[in-house]
Amino acid sequence: MKKINLEQKFSLFDETWTPKIIAESNGQLVKIAKGQGELVWHSHNNEDELFIVFKGQLTLKFRDGDVTLGPGELYVVPKGVEHCPFAEEETHFLMVEPASTAHTGSIKSDATVDISDQNWI
Amino acid sequence: MKKINLEQKFSLFDETWTPKIIAESNGQLVKIAKGQGELVWHSHNNEDELFIVFKGQLTLKFRDGDVTLGPGELYVVPKGVEHCPFAEEETHFLMVEPASTAHTGSIKSDATVDISDQNWI
Repeated sequence: MKKINLEQKFSLFDETWTPKIIAESNGQLVKIAKGQGELVWHSHNNEDELFIVFKGQLTLKFRDGDVTLGPGELYVVPKGVEHCPFAEEETHFLMVEPASTAHTGSIKSDATVDISDQNWI
Repeated sequence: MKKINLEQKFSLFDETWTPKIIAESNGQLVKIAKGQGELVWHSHNNEDELFIVFKGQLTLKFRDGDVTLGPGELYVVPKGVEHCPFAEEETHFLMVEPASTAHTGSIKSDATVDISDQNWI
């Protein structure tokens, strides 16, 4: 395996809320995504979701309050907890989650990316 | 859970090669460590080990060559692959690995931290 440079990987795409897979470790996928605007309220019944922000501000809306992450900040959304990612300006973040994790859980919206389309870059 | 600020967490300790646990996600632990000098050659029979560097330069020595990671670079050391971490200057990095991962695999050195001593911060 060659080392992975996140800035170089982020330069390869422009779409928002469209996770790209960059590595696999212990059955979990390391994904990066850009965010701007709002995704959709959803939860993952069986998977925790680790977020680390590298650029911008990622707000994770929860039913009982929001958490806003800047560069160098991380958060784990526990399985089953409803959340809605939001970013006012273009935001770059990394996720680590099991390969089974559906993009927007059981919710299907226009923004939903089919898990089989989450391409490696 | 409150959000985690990596810089704040790194400010809490000075020891090198002494991973501190900052989060758990899907049975894997998110750990941070500082490195300077060399740890010890070892491998983990059953666990891949994800490294992300935030400050400095982390060299992962392998039997067939080295990989040096700077800030914003990541690497997955596959299970069973011998490696020896090295950093010339103080380096800050994050790891994601299963809770079962022993610090230096089956190798015990003066630098080895018992897995039960890998405290949460």
